[in-house]
Amino acid sequence: MALIVQKYGGTSVGDTDRIKNVAARIKVARDEGHQLVVVVSARAGVTNELIARAKACNPRPDSRELDMLLAIGEQETIALTAMALHAIDVPAVSYTGAQAGIVTDLVHTKAKIMNIFPTALRNDLKAGKVIIVAGFQGMNEHGQITTLGRGGSDLTAIALAAAVQADKCEIYTDVDGVYTADPRYVKDATKLNEISYDEMLELASQGSKVMQSRSVEFAKKYGVVFEVRSSFNHNPGTIVKEEVAYMEKVIVRGVAVDKDQAKVIISHLPDKPGSAAAVLRALADASINVDMIVQNVGHQGFANVTFTVPKDDAQNAVRVLPAVFAKLGGGEVAAFDNIAKLSVVGVGMRTHAGVAAQMLEALAEAGINVELIATSEIKITLAVSRERADDAQRAVHKSFGLGKKE
Amino acid sequence: MALIVQKYGGTSVGDTDRIKNVAARIKVARDEGHQLVVVVSARAGVTNELIARAKACNPRPDSRELDMLLAIGEQETIALTAMALHAIDVPAVSYTGAQAGIVTDLVHTKAKIMNIFPTALRNDLKAGKVIIVAGFQGMNEHGQITTLGRGGSDLTAIALAAAVQADKCEIYTDVDGVYTADPRYVKDATKLNEISYDEMLELASQGSKVMQSRSVEFAKKYGVVFEVRSSFNHNPGTIVKEEVAYMEKVIVRGVAVDKDQAKVIISHLPDKPGSAAAVLRALADASINVDMIVQNVGHQGFANVTFTVPKDDAQNAVRVLPAVFAKLGGGEVAAFDNIAKLSVVGVGMRTHAGVAAQMLEALAEAGINVELIATSEIKITLAVSRERADDAQRAVHKSFGLGKKE
Repeated sequence: MALIVQKYGGTSVGDTDRIKNVAARIKVARDEGHQLVVVVSARAGVTNELIARAKACNPRPDSRELDMLLAIGEQETIALTAMALHAIDVPAVSYTGAQAGIVTDLVHTKAKIMNIFPTALRNDLKAGKVIIVAGFQGMNEHGQITTLGRGGSDLTAIALAAAVQADKCEIYTDVDGVYTADPRYVKDATKLNEISYDEMLELASQGSKVMQSRSVEFAKKYGVVFEVRSSFNHNPGTIVKEEVAYMEKVIVRGVAVDKDQAKVIISHLPDKPGSAAAVLRALADASINVDMIVQNVGHQGFANVTFTVPKDDAQNAVRVLPAVFAKLGGGEVAAFDNIAKLSVVGVGMRTHAGVAAQMLEALAEAGINVELIATSEIKITLAVSRERADDAQRAVHKSFGLGKKE
Repeated sequence: MALIVQKYGGTSVGDTDRIKNVAARIKVARDEGHQLVVVVSARAGVTNELIARAKACNPRPDSRELDMLLAIGEQETIALTAMALHAIDVPAVSYTGAQAGIVTDLVHTKAKIMNIFPTALRNDLKAGKVIIVAGFQGMNEHGQITTLGRGGSDLTAIALAAAVQADKCEIYTDVDGVYTADPRYVKDATKLNEISYDEMLELASQGSKVMQSRSVEFAKKYGVVFEVRSSFNHNPGTIVKEEVAYMEKVIVRGVAVDKDQAKVIISHLPDKPGSAAAVLRALADASINVDMIVQNVGHQGFANVTFTVPKDDAQNAVRVLPAVFAKLGGGEVAAFDNIAKLSVVGVGMRTHAGVAAQMLEALAEAGINVELIATSEIKITLAVSRERADDAQRAVHKSFGLGKKE
């Protein structure tokens, strides 16, 4: 008998039929003798509906009131899921985030979990009940309802798994697991049976839609092993955990592409100490997320700085910088929003030279130009033109032998 | 400066435009210098939608889970109302029933309010904020969400008015106030400026849809004076309070008709002690609500009992009684579901004989037969055929001079 935390996302509980399907899956696990804590999201679409209604009342809704409003999405699904379980003779009881003892900081709409007090929940577990917990939400020390922001329901599941010391944590979603590349663009992409936290983190930060970084970071911090799998079939998924010995043999685990990127080039910046720092400070103050920074060697007293930003931030950067240029006594900015980032990820890279070389060779062979290069311990990222991004992905995927084995 | 509790029902907050309209009304009262605690219901229709979704998951949903589900209806409107107030520069903060300190008993779907702890709410009031409270809901001592059942939002408003010792309590609804008769059937029905708790109670129990009895009873018990008025215009409404001196001059305050009634006639019942009691016990055990009981004098060893029941219960009565007849050694039952109850209500009746006589004369003049008569201290009820109910209402209304004064 194991204690299992399961999490079902918005599409998995998208309507009452799907909620019944989820209930049936829960019953199977319970009939196998397991204790279950189940985290559910709001029905797909509900959160957007509520935001639209909020904006009809106030174009800039207060964040506390937005949390009060958004929390009802999950409160609906927990109640319906418990009812669907009762209908098939499974004892179950629903918990809001507050009732589950999930205490957050005082920030609204993107609160952080500070602590979990699962006493009530444990008593109901002991009494043989399946516990259904509202994902994405908690309560702060003033008794206010808070929400956890993007990826919040995954975070609820992983934090609960840590708090109740679960034997397993299963994240049910609409994909089968983590793949070596996006199967929509790379036909022979294969599902990974296992992946390390660090690899998963790098994939998440590089545009893989499977899971937000913060949940993976939390899992890594508390050593929560979890499995990403589909709620629409019974295929085994991908297990995410600390790296294991045999992983060392593998160089590259997967390829990720983020097409929503732009390149910003700053030229004619006075080449003196602190000028690049002043530029980056201004961007940070404007909440612009800068990545892949390259500073060219200056010539004739000028420096160039090139970086990537999310596409939506590019024009923001163009708007913010002239004020800095005025103070520094020079500078020009231009944005190009036709960029994609292509990353390869793998813990094996740490001990293998030549991964960057192999990647560049594969792209050169496919006639694809590389505009920027950035490397970390277990990741190499290249900026390429967006229109060649899928070709680039396929070429690299093939070069590292990630496709299905014959 | 007064402390005012306002309550807005489901049609008043039916969509985002109406919520903005409510916000504008609240702003007017606040600009006049008043402190405000505002109770809102769920948007009209939401509760029924949620119940339908519950039944799709489970034909007999658990009452605890139903409360968890239904409570989200009001949680939506409190957040949206607070946002709409912010949009017009009114500081406001929303409270769930639990956050407002509304503590109920352990019953689900029709909980009773046990106590209110309005400390947090009072602090926000002092800080100059408008308080928006979710009607219809509370929390029990185990931290479970409960709902108060039919008329629950009115009850929340009146209980809060008592708890914070409000100077005024205003119940906003889709009617202008309490009328001497239903204006849809009696053209010259007039709005009452004032009415006593007891009269309001008798009208509520006799089919007036304005307000549930339990809220009026609560207001009477705690001496909460409240006004029933429309949220769609600015007409003064009807003030409900303890009877006042000048009321003694008034004999009849209003007329109410309940058309959803049936008459059940039991005949050939053995005329021995306890046989009528056995019949009524069987009906009570079947949760059949019996009213206007008349026992005829028996002849030839038989007794007859006639009573009215809500129309839906008539066939139930017919089904339940044969088992009792078998035990008693005789009896027959027949139901006639073409009955209406016509009541006149007024505290003045206590000291005036002749009200029943005047009522019967008016009906005789209009050629309407009276089938049953029942009287209380401040109410006389007659059963008439349903098809003549509106004629009867008009005749009695006219006879007591309740119409508009020239």
